Amino acid sequence: MIMTELIEKKKNGGKLTREEINDIIDGYCKNGIPDYQMSALLMAICFRGMTEAETFYLTESMLNSGKALDLSSIPGIKCDKHSTGGVGDKTSLVLCPLVASLGVKVAKMSGRGLGFTGGTLDKLESIPGMRVNLTPSEFFETVKKVGMAIVGQSAELVPADKKLYALRDVTATVDSIPLIASSIMSKKLASGSDCILLDVKYGKGAFMPTKEKAEALAKEMVRIGEHFGKDTRAEITSMEQPLGFAIGNILEVEEAIDTLHGKGPKDFVDLILHSGTTMLLQSKLYDNAEKAKKALLANLENGKAYQVFKDFVKAQGGDVSYLDDPTKFPKALYSFPIKSLKSGYVKAIDALDLGLISMELGAGREKKEDVIDPTAGIVLAKKVGDVVSKGDLLMTLYTERANMRDLVSRALGDYEFSDTETTSLPVVEECIRMEGDDFIIEKD
Amino acid sequence: MIMTELIEKKKNGGKLTREEINDIIDGYCKNGIPDYQMSALLMAICFRGMTEAETFYLTESMLNSGKALDLSSIPGIKCDKHSTGGVGDKTSLVLCPLVASLGVKVAKMSGRGLGFTGGTLDKLESIPGMRVNLTPSEFFETVKKVGMAIVGQSAELVPADKKLYALRDVTATVDSIPLIASSIMSKKLASGSDCILLDVKYGKGAFMPTKEKAEALAKEMVRIGEHFGKDTRAEITSMEQPLGFAIGNILEVEEAIDTLHGKGPKDFVDLILHSGTTMLLQSKLYDNAEKAKKALLANLENGKAYQVFKDFVKAQGGDVSYLDDPTKFPKALYSFPIKSLKSGYVKAIDALDLGLISMELGAGREKKEDVIDPTAGIVLAKKVGDVVSKGDLLMTLYTERANMRDLVSRALGDYEFSDTETTSLPVVEECIRMEGDDFIIEKD
Repeated sequence: MIMTELIEKKKNGGKLTREEINDIIDGYCKNGIPDYQMSALLMAICFRGMTEAETFYLTESMLNSGKALDLSSIPGIKCDKHSTGGVGDKTSLVLCPLVASLGVKVAKMSGRGLGFTGGTLDKLESIPGMRVNLTPSEFFETVKKVGMAIVGQSAELVPADKKLYALRDVTATVDSIPLIASSIMSKKLASGSDCILLDVKYGKGAFMPTKEKAEALAKEMVRIGEHFGKDTRAEITSMEQPLGFAIGNILEVEEAIDTLHGKGPKDFVDLILHSGTTMLLQSKLYDNAEKAKKALLANLENGKAYQVFKDFVKAQGGDVSYLDDPTKFPKALYSFPIKSLKSGYVKAIDALDLGLISMELGAGREKKEDVIDPTAGIVLAKKVGDVVSKGDLLMTLYTERANMRDLVSRALGDYEFSDTETTSLPVVEECIRMEGDDFIIEKD
Repeated sequence: MIMTELIEKKKNGGKLTREEINDIIDGYCKNGIPDYQMSALLMAICFRGMTEAETFYLTESMLNSGKALDLSSIPGIKCDKHSTGGVGDKTSLVLCPLVASLGVKVAKMSGRGLGFTGGTLDKLESIPGMRVNLTPSEFFETVKKVGMAIVGQSAELVPADKKLYALRDVTATVDSIPLIASSIMSKKLASGSDCILLDVKYGKGAFMPTKEKAEALAKEMVRIGEHFGKDTRAEITSMEQPLGFAIGNILEVEEAIDTLHGKGPKDFVDLILHSGTTMLLQSKLYDNAEKAKKALLANLENGKAYQVFKDFVKAQGGDVSYLDDPTKFPKALYSFPIKSLKSGYVKAIDALDLGLISMELGAGREKKEDVIDPTAGIVLAKKVGDVVSKGDLLMTLYTERANMRDLVSRALGDYEFSDTETTSLPVVEECIRMEGDDFIIEKD
């Protein structure tokens, strides 16, 4: 294989074979292919795309670069979920214990936050004592005993993706649907679950800017999952405003606890019930969506989901006294309540900018090396569709950092008002799955 | 400057500013920008192209990466020529002494051959004693005394191009008109001549596959040259068959000597006279093409051009006794005369494949490190338009290497015959120059 010829082939719109893609990924991991050739190929892929077959081969080669997990020793149907990330997305903290309380096994590997999106691991680690670096046997035992566990991704899982992603990040080659899809799906497939539920968010505060792009990515990922024999479904969800009220690590854990006590924000609960229903159907524990949803709602209200969350936090070393009494969590040194200068109906909330403000307050990382402040963030008081009078509280900013007052007027500008009534958007807009070679798209 | 953002900008079809391009080239030369970011940008440029302005900025930045030559101490008009390279292209060996014999000063920096194209330096070095690595003062003195000199390019001339070209070569990013044009023109501009004549070859045995692409490259280069205040013209020449009869280093020197004695192959002499006329007009030594051509023809026949060639070879240390008696040149160990199996008119000769065969015989380099055998190569006996009877000699292969007999049948296949009369192609098809902002294209 001569790498220059393969780059040329892709540059000219040709199709790479299974063997060629395998040689490329293998050569890149073993340092035979230098970064500068790989980045040229990646850029050519950004322009030329990849066929379905090429995308399968790429996913397969990445999968083969590491050691996939074998979850067969864990009884029951293992169902994984993945969100492409958004502002205020604390879904895993509630959804995983909720479906686990109904018998789904969740052995989840998660990531850290970067930029305007928060990461599940960072949120979990804001609970004192919480460990996300379990050994494989601790991980397996926790899932068997509690029904769920959430850990960080091990470096050996899909080393090719780790290396490729680091290169894409610094060469402006992130934005390519086959590359994104194979990156996510190789990790999901390597994680060993039987079913995969994908939450593909779109909008200003999400990775995919438009619904069309989110759909294209969702279909590509569902296709890959099904090709590798997994029941894979994707929900297209709107990130036109932050999810729930809380943005920031401890703040989101507190909101997750409220939700597990049946007192969650409407949009967040709607998402949880929708995704939970899909996971129960995928796991074949329910064959009727209505019944599944009822069971989920019941376990949010009767404390069973919360109990699984507590057991999970305890099993991973977390101090559960903080869950039972969230007032124990540390509070940020400074808080800025922001009141509305206008009256009207909330029409839109700029999730992206609030995510960036939250990062500046200390809740997120600009660079991988940055240290997160678990107390920092934003709590909204009003969401799209709410009526606001001048002087009403819109949100509160929390930070440990001095000189953050300038962010107040910027945050204020992230709310858009209308004189006429507005309605809140449905969070889950579509659910995409395959039957044979066809996509079934269920609109909500 | 954040390189990732500049790559993203070009990827999305944006225009880079003068400052941005300068920062990129400067950063790349000083090792601040890694190869993997540069190759991603180069690939984006291959897809998105560059505007005229961007191409000027790139040329300027490359030019500024090194030290341009100042030829002002040499009296007279200095005129440079550059060929994009082809099979059997020994033009500089004849054209430079010919125009120098009429008063044009030629201070030429040349390159080595790679792949199917030969390099002027390699051809010159097949003359015993010939030195192409003169010191700057030796170079200047030779041009002053003899009227011409040909040396290798110094590493300090345009270091950015050296580094960029090495990267493009291994990342399939050579094939981009603005990148090719700025690479060639930065070197020509740095070489310091007042006028530049470009020979842009197209066809199977050339760098540019089609006439359209050759024209586009020629225009881009003329535009750059004029932008930087040089009288720049380009000839579009066909490389549908090898130039002249000889391919290979000593073989081409011998053909050059014959040509300087007024006994050159018709297509080669036509090219020399055309290019020579253009150079005399550019140098303002003649204002009439007809008269210029007559003077050139006279100096080919009266020995004056040959005398300049001898003086030039002598000044650069070459043993001129080989020029006066070419039978002194060593001969290849093996020769394979190839006779035609068919009768008919020669319709086409595959210059590319003959160039590759010549490389395999030892006349060229596959890799930079390869050593050239000066005696190896091919001498054609028939060209396009010639009538051939079965059994007539078509060509002879020369080599020092054993086991080359298999190339005979391959070479035979490179001749295409027709039952009806064929005509040989005109070598120079067009001459392109600018008047104000307009291109003037003179068809031949």
